[in-house]
Amino acid sequence: MSPGVWRYSDIQKEKTNLLDAANAKPDTAKLNLWEKIPFPLVESQIQISKQNGKLYMRFPLEKDEQIYGLGLQFKQVNRRGRVYDLHMDHYGGVDNGRTHAPVPFYVSSKGYGVLINTARYITVYVGTGVRVDSPNPPRVYNRNTDEDWKAQPLSDAVEVLVPVDEAEVILFAGRSPLDVVRKYNLYSGGGCLPPKWGLGFMYRTHTKYTSEDVIKEVEEFDKHEFPLDCIGLEPGWMDRSYPCSYEWDSVRFPDPESFVKTLLNKNIRTNLWINPYLAPRSGLYEPMKQYAGSHTVWNGIVPDYSLAGARKVFTDFYEREQLNIGVSGLKIDEADGYDRWLWPDVATFPSGVDAEQMRQTYGLYLQDMLLEEYHKKNIRTYGLVRASNAGASRFPFVIYNDYYNHEDFITAMINSGFSGVLWTPEVRSSASGEEWLRRMQTVCFSPMAMINAWSSGTKPWSYPEVFEAVREVAAMRMQLLPYIYSTFADYHFNGTPPIRPMPLVEGFVDDDGEEAGKLDDTLNPYKLATKKDIKDQYMFGDNILVAPVFTGQTSRSVILPKGKWFDFYSGVYAGENEIITIRATLEKIPLFVRDGGIIPMIPSRRHAPINGELLPLEVRHYGDSEGTFLLYDDDGETFDYEKGEFSWTELRTTKDQQGRLLGAETKVSTTIFSYRDITWRFMTK
Amino acid sequence: MSPGVWRYSDIQKEKTNLLDAANAKPDTAKLNLWEKIPFPLVESQIQISKQNGKLYMRFPLEKDEQIYGLGLQFKQVNRRGRVYDLHMDHYGGVDNGRTHAPVPFYVSSKGYGVLINTARYITVYVGTGVRVDSPNPPRVYNRNTDEDWKAQPLSDAVEVLVPVDEAEVILFAGRSPLDVVRKYNLYSGGGCLPPKWGLGFMYRTHTKYTSEDVIKEVEEFDKHEFPLDCIGLEPGWMDRSYPCSYEWDSVRFPDPESFVKTLLNKNIRTNLWINPYLAPRSGLYEPMKQYAGSHTVWNGIVPDYSLAGARKVFTDFYEREQLNIGVSGLKIDEADGYDRWLWPDVATFPSGVDAEQMRQTYGLYLQDMLLEEYHKKNIRTYGLVRASNAGASRFPFVIYNDYYNHEDFITAMINSGFSGVLWTPEVRSSASGEEWLRRMQTVCFSPMAMINAWSSGTKPWSYPEVFEAVREVAAMRMQLLPYIYSTFADYHFNGTPPIRPMPLVEGFVDDDGEEAGKLDDTLNPYKLATKKDIKDQYMFGDNILVAPVFTGQTSRSVILPKGKWFDFYSGVYAGENEIITIRATLEKIPLFVRDGGIIPMIPSRRHAPINGELLPLEVRHYGDSEGTFLLYDDDGETFDYEKGEFSWTELRTTKDQQGRLLGAETKVSTTIFSYRDITWRFMTK
Repeated sequence: MSPGVWRYSDIQKEKTNLLDAANAKPDTAKLNLWEKIPFPLVESQIQISKQNGKLYMRFPLEKDEQIYGLGLQFKQVNRRGRVYDLHMDHYGGVDNGRTHAPVPFYVSSKGYGVLINTARYITVYVGTGVRVDSPNPPRVYNRNTDEDWKAQPLSDAVEVLVPVDEAEVILFAGRSPLDVVRKYNLYSGGGCLPPKWGLGFMYRTHTKYTSEDVIKEVEEFDKHEFPLDCIGLEPGWMDRSYPCSYEWDSVRFPDPESFVKTLLNKNIRTNLWINPYLAPRSGLYEPMKQYAGSHTVWNGIVPDYSLAGARKVFTDFYEREQLNIGVSGLKIDEADGYDRWLWPDVATFPSGVDAEQMRQTYGLYLQDMLLEEYHKKNIRTYGLVRASNAGASRFPFVIYNDYYNHEDFITAMINSGFSGVLWTPEVRSSASGEEWLRRMQTVCFSPMAMINAWSSGTKPWSYPEVFEAVREVAAMRMQLLPYIYSTFADYHFNGTPPIRPMPLVEGFVDDDGEEAGKLDDTLNPYKLATKKDIKDQYMFGDNILVAPVFTGQTSRSVILPKGKWFDFYSGVYAGENEIITIRATLEKIPLFVRDGGIIPMIPSRRHAPINGELLPLEVRHYGDSEGTFLLYDDDGETFDYEKGEFSWTELRTTKDQQGRLLGAETKVSTTIFSYRDITWRFMTK
Repeated sequence: MSPGVWRYSDIQKEKTNLLDAANAKPDTAKLNLWEKIPFPLVESQIQISKQNGKLYMRFPLEKDEQIYGLGLQFKQVNRRGRVYDLHMDHYGGVDNGRTHAPVPFYVSSKGYGVLINTARYITVYVGTGVRVDSPNPPRVYNRNTDEDWKAQPLSDAVEVLVPVDEAEVILFAGRSPLDVVRKYNLYSGGGCLPPKWGLGFMYRTHTKYTSEDVIKEVEEFDKHEFPLDCIGLEPGWMDRSYPCSYEWDSVRFPDPESFVKTLLNKNIRTNLWINPYLAPRSGLYEPMKQYAGSHTVWNGIVPDYSLAGARKVFTDFYEREQLNIGVSGLKIDEADGYDRWLWPDVATFPSGVDAEQMRQTYGLYLQDMLLEEYHKKNIRTYGLVRASNAGASRFPFVIYNDYYNHEDFITAMINSGFSGVLWTPEVRSSASGEEWLRRMQTVCFSPMAMINAWSSGTKPWSYPEVFEAVREVAAMRMQLLPYIYSTFADYHFNGTPPIRPMPLVEGFVDDDGEEAGKLDDTLNPYKLATKKDIKDQYMFGDNILVAPVFTGQTSRSVILPKGKWFDFYSGVYAGENEIITIRATLEKIPLFVRDGGIIPMIPSRRHAPINGELLPLEVRHYGDSEGTFLLYDDDGETFDYEKGEFSWTELRTTKDQQGRLLGAETKVSTTIFSYRDITWRFMTK
């Protein structure tokens, strides 16, 4: 189809499928720029057959090959040797495939990826089944006598069951796993480019807040000198919720328009919580009823948003009541599950889309509908969603959930980078100041820096003993906005995921180390080995390696890939191609920068840059190698970048004849460039 | 079909289905003895339709109706408001439908039950979905303002998705939920009748034991005066396992025949562990290979036991090598899962049975094959299996697993009573003497009293501080054998489950109490209510209510149904129709007997009664009402009871003119009766 992109031609996709539900249009122009690359697998080793109305698929696996992806799992990164039933759901604490983004796309360490474009629940056996006629049979051990016996003999294939006989299979190949992910994202239309304010700080207020409460809260942010770009309102903004009216509560919010404008005048956006289930007493109910599915959720009807009619009912209302008064976007809750209150798989929808398909795609339809609405107005949005899937990279929505395990939130963020989705480890409340700070540190190095106080009412300063450090990391987030915004531009234009798992980092080697299990008749009767899994560190953009510290830790180990690495704060050399152990201070989240890494920063501020502002730029350089960084800029608010209204500025360090590093920039635009007084700072002495 | 049994006639069953795989033949003679009963539901409220190649089913639910069953779940008993994907698997700690006996049969508190006879993975929504056009819509609350808002509005239907368009639906009705379960079991051919020795004590030795080690262990049982009826050998009896040879290890067991005979001479049976996966170096491998599925498990081939050819290969071998030398039965391990090593759903089998169907039925095929083999020889067997399903009640196999949570083991035992399967809370090892004793107490009030020391090597006397109490409860088990054997006869002839959940007990009312949830933004964001679930007490046969005590408990509450209840040990009145709180002594498991309850007992002994023995019988009576008990007897070893070679003796207490209780028995047979010197003991003064 494009260089390094192939589609299996013998079977057809179903009418309802993920990419079409996501309205994903391949960025063919970008994809065609890639160099040609040979087909990465031995074709005869791929088997795709129809049997009993189902599709049985097999893709070969090499002995030392590792597999990643398959959506937003929370506990493991390396997928080999595991089984996933990809099924849209509220994550339930087990990595079994039921999650908020059960993306049927996997990436191999060998530089290729496979997308099964289907809206069915599929089962993916990632190197578990061993065939009788396998050409690479594992050695047979005798458990009675061989200590080396393993509960899981090595399998030489990924196998997939699709419960219908139609599905699109697309294979991506690249020179590295990162290139494969880039192509996958470009195939979905590229990554999203959030508005600049979206990368600042969001605070979601208590659900029962009135407009006065919110304004007071904003003043408190002023007093505490804490950044704030967006206020999120939780269910209480509506006059009824669960099921929802989508109509402002006239007591708590007597004048929504003036409320939203008041915030906007302070450079603060308003984001509104909704879930998709419409209350009988909503004005939308009657016009929407004809487009509703057979079952209710929390007594609300479920609009069939695969239908243009349903979309129009919603968007006409939304445009009139929310968008036109200045609402910046939505948090779309509970489009994922869970089973006990979502529509059952026996539900029917007027479009004829199966309940199963509707469940896998509902979040996609909702995101597409809302993005299209903002696009029409030429205003960018940046919101939240709890259900996404394949083809979603262009959607400016960040996934979140209720699960709230800090360590697992970071693993989820890492996994998001393989699957073309964004994840925020949102902060709600904490058992201690230490936990509060540790969570705040990581959320500031995520796609959305946010506190969600919907129930707890917690403020950034609720733990006074750590507030200085909390403010410091939030300030750091604001200083890094030029770096972060350029990182997202790379996501948009090149498909490069802003959160990068270590297996996508050049110089990182996943050795598939296993720790042998210890036999225990009740705890480990099969003597299961534990896979060493790198799930607590990641790259934030090209240059910053983040090594979060969790509550209770006083030190941690960090894997530094090949090439030298330097401490972000001091510029001091930290190591190369080794595992280092660092002492964890409470105040700072450990960050490392690669050799030659360039990081553009602005002074600390309380709001993201506003279109037209000119800001001084400090460009930091780390290490002793030359480096380059492409600084992206545009108006930060509209879709005019689609018409070419943007600039890339090359920031470059070179060595003079004495070997001293010098900085330089190549401006390509004077009009689309928000920076002045560029100063270079060489962090490594 | 029979009084109170209906089959839905508009759709056909699939060729491969559970009842046929179980070779279940309805006991029509018994079923026809029941009185006629009207159809229990409004027929028009049942909907079964084919859509997109699947079956969508709906059965009505009344507001105060409770639903039980759906197989061996471990954490809850009451199914209402929950969703189950019935899927054969290793239980994984969550009641989601994946378990060792995912039986698609549910029982209503309203006195009917529904069986979906399909070998597919089906999803059952037990009162979760609420339809837009429901005639009984729940009240709509506003979560913003109503404290009464619930995350789960009451649904008026059970809904079922079957992923193919064929399935048999059978509805059972009775005057009570117990009668419904009886009919379901009779429809499967009635319950199993174990040999008498099977109800004694089983000890499974360490996997590495030699025949000498085993004989020494048996001597230790003698020395410790501990009952022993069956020795179980774990994988080490074979020369290779995982995958298995099924061939004796010539070093550890140089003379199997004399070994088995030596034990038999001591009245001890031998049970052998196997799993179904055949090693390349087994003599069975070559003849079986033609019948094997496409995938291996632990490098062993998976015989397709739906084929007569495969069965013959196995049973010819088994008869020659094991049965004919006196082996009493098997423990059939790992026929259930789990996904990471079982065959994947893309596996194929020579019979054409789908991998999914094979997984749901594999345990049934294995049990049927083995039972048939012993039946042919007119020798009863009693063994273990880790995978079962609908139609299994006649199989003399008890389910067990590795999960090992004591409380949840009891919940599983309770749930087994709704689903026509047997469960043992087997004891392996314990963290303390207290835990060891508590586990031993419950396993002695289960279908199989067993220690499984395969890995730990633990002995009954390994915790000396509690050994006296351990021996006491094991002795109690042996004393109760006439009661337990009669209880199983009632299972066999009348379908009455030996382990009876409280909702099957007359006089017990399940009030569906809910405890309102407490909102917590991270722990309970939906303010989910907790269902009060009676999952820690059950009836063992008709008369004994067992209220297990778990480690750490010093007291517990016990729900006594309507009618008076008496302490088993003292005969003292305990209460009626109330919740009592009892102090838990370490030495005794709390037991209560219903008013008029009669319990026949023999003197404590080290082996179950042997055919031909004549034993003194003590008949205990509790309370102050008259009562009757049907004492069953037969040879205890063969299937001659199928030819009428058995006796039922009525034990009856009546009051004389002064109101004093007197005991009497009506013997119907002198030849088939193992008891002499019947003495009556009136426990309640």
